Amino acid sequence: MRIGGIEAGGTKFVCGYGTIDGTIEHMTSFATGNPEETCRQVIEYFTEHPVDAIGIGAFGPVDVKEHSPSYGTILETPKTAWRQFLLLSTLKQALGLPMKLDTDVNCAALGEARFSTETDRPNSLIYITVGTGIGGGAYIENRLIHGLLHPEMGHITVQRHPHDTYGGCCSIHHDCLEGLASGPAIEGRYHTLAQMLPEEHPAWSLQAYYLGQMTANLLLTLSPERIIFGGGVMKQPALLPLILEETDKRLHGYLQLPKPLNEIVTKPSFDGLSGLMGAIALGADALKEQGAAQ
Amino acid sequence: MRIGGIEAGGTKFVCGYGTIDGTIEHMTSFATGNPEETCRQVIEYFTEHPVDAIGIGAFGPVDVKEHSPSYGTILETPKTAWRQFLLLSTLKQALGLPMKLDTDVNCAALGEARFSTETDRPNSLIYITVGTGIGGGAYIENRLIHGLLHPEMGHITVQRHPHDTYGGCCSIHHDCLEGLASGPAIEGRYHTLAQMLPEEHPAWSLQAYYLGQMTANLLLTLSPERIIFGGGVMKQPALLPLILEETDKRLHGYLQLPKPLNEIVTKPSFDGLSGLMGAIALGADALKEQGAAQ
Repeated sequence: MRIGGIEAGGTKFVCGYGTIDGTIEHMTSFATGNPEETCRQVIEYFTEHPVDAIGIGAFGPVDVKEHSPSYGTILETPKTAWRQFLLLSTLKQALGLPMKLDTDVNCAALGEARFSTETDRPNSLIYITVGTGIGGGAYIENRLIHGLLHPEMGHITVQRHPHDTYGGCCSIHHDCLEGLASGPAIEGRYHTLAQMLPEEHPAWSLQAYYLGQMTANLLLTLSPERIIFGGGVMKQPALLPLILEETDKRLHGYLQLPKPLNEIVTKPSFDGLSGLMGAIALGADALKEQGAAQ
Repeated sequence: MRIGGIEAGGTKFVCGYGTIDGTIEHMTSFATGNPEETCRQVIEYFTEHPVDAIGIGAFGPVDVKEHSPSYGTILETPKTAWRQFLLLSTLKQALGLPMKLDTDVNCAALGEARFSTETDRPNSLIYITVGTGIGGGAYIENRLIHGLLHPEMGHITVQRHPHDTYGGCCSIHHDCLEGLASGPAIEGRYHTLAQMLPEEHPAWSLQAYYLGQMTANLLLTLSPERIIFGGGVMKQPALLPLILEETDKRLHGYLQLPKPLNEIVTKPSFDGLSGLMGAIALGADALKEQGAAQ
C-alpha cells in the first residue's frame, strides 16, 4: 500500500507518499499559485506517482466537518482566489481515490501522535506552530478535535508583560497571543527578523513569557500528554527551555504531573515532516474507512 | 433497567437512580463525613434501592484513568481523611455492580450533553462551575476528556482588570481565574457573600471580565458547541449576559460562529441535576460495557 499526503499551505504545497507506518518514500514541493494551477500540479504528481489514498492537511479556515456539504472547502481566507474553492472535491473528482482532509496543524498533531516511537504512545497531544501566525492542532483521546469550527488557539488572551509597550500586530485583537508573540510581532517590536536575534536577546524571554502562559493554560484546560512546539520562531534553540521555565512558574506546582515537564512539552519528533506524515496517516484512515464501508 | 448515580461531593453526597434516558426516579443526599461512614450510607441506599449499575461523579483530585491500578482512588485532597481512599473499589466490592467513575464536573458535562433535548445534540460541550472554586469538565467528540490528569481549568492565567487591586485568593497562584473570580474572591474583594450583592453591583461586570476571557479562550482553543455555566455564583441572573458581552468583545468577530453566542454559551438545562444525570449516564455506560464484554 502506498499512501499519498498533501500539505496544502498558503505559501507552498508539499506532495509526497509513503507507507502506512509513516515512512516517507518521496516528496516534492512547489509554490502555492492560484487554485486551478496548484491543483493541476497536485494531480500531475499523483498521476506520475500513483497511490491508494490521500490525506490532505490544508491551510485554513477550511471546512473540516466530514458530514458537511462543504467538507474540504476553503472558507474566508485572506487569499481571495482560494475563497470557497472546493479543494477536496476537486482533487477527489480528478483522482478518484479515498481522501480525507483536516487542518495543517491537526495533521501535524496527528503525525506526531500516530508515528511516535515512544513505548507509551501519547493519546492526547497538542501541536503548536509559532511562525507568521500562531496556530494549534489538537489530538485528544485518539481523535482530532474539530468542535464548532476548528481551534484557533493563536488568538487567546494572555497577560501582557508589565514592561512590554508593543501594541501587538493582530489586526483583529491587537494584543492576543498571536499579536504579541508571532514572528511578525517580534519584527514589529525589534525591527528585525526573529532569526537575526541572538540567543541572549531579551526577545526570547519575552516570547517565553507569552508562550509559557499558553502552555500552562493548555495543561490546565486539556491536560494533554504532550505539547509540541514547531514553526519558524521555535528554531531559536534557547526558546523552548525558557518556555518550560515560564510554564513551571505559572503552574507553581499545582499539577502533579506524572513526568518531568521537559518530557511533556517538547520539539517535534519529525521536524518539518510532521504535517506530511500526518497527512499520510489521514490518507491511511481514508483507505481503512473505505474498506470498512465496502 | 434502573441505573444508580452518585454525586460524591466534598460537602455532600447525592445518591439517586433513574432510567437510561436520564429520568430521575428517586434521590437523596447527606453530608460528606469520613470515608467509611459515608460509604456505609451509600451502600445502605443502594441496598434499599437496588439498581443494575452505578456511575459516580467524584470530587477531586481523583484517578479517573480506567486502566490505572488506582482507578477511582481519591488523590491529594485537602480533605485528609479521604486521601488515597479507594472510593470506587470499596463500593464495587460491597455492591458487586458494574460501575464507572469520573470527576463531578465531567459528569455534569456528560449529563448536559447526553440528555440534551435539542434536535442537534451537541457532541462537544464544556461544563464550568463557578462557586467555592472554578472547575470545568470537557466532553469532546462524544467523549469525556482526561488526558494526563484531568482538566483543572479554574487555574488558568487571565488578564487582570486594570482597576482591580484585589490580590487574588488562590493559595497557589494568587491571581489565576479562580483566585480572581470564584465565590471566595468576591467575598475577599467586597467583604460580603456573592449572593448578597445586588444585580447592579460592579462585582458582576468584573466577574464577567474574567469569566468572558475564559469563555473566549475556550472557544478559540477547543471550539466546543456549547459552554455551560453552573455553580453558586452563576445564580445571579445578570452575570451570564455580561459574560456573553465580554466574550463577544474578546473574540471581536474573529470566529464565524454558526449560531448566536447566546445559544452556545448558556445556563445548564438541568440546573442542579446535571451531575446526577451524568452519573446515571456513566452508570448506563458501565452496564453497556459489561454487556459487551460478556
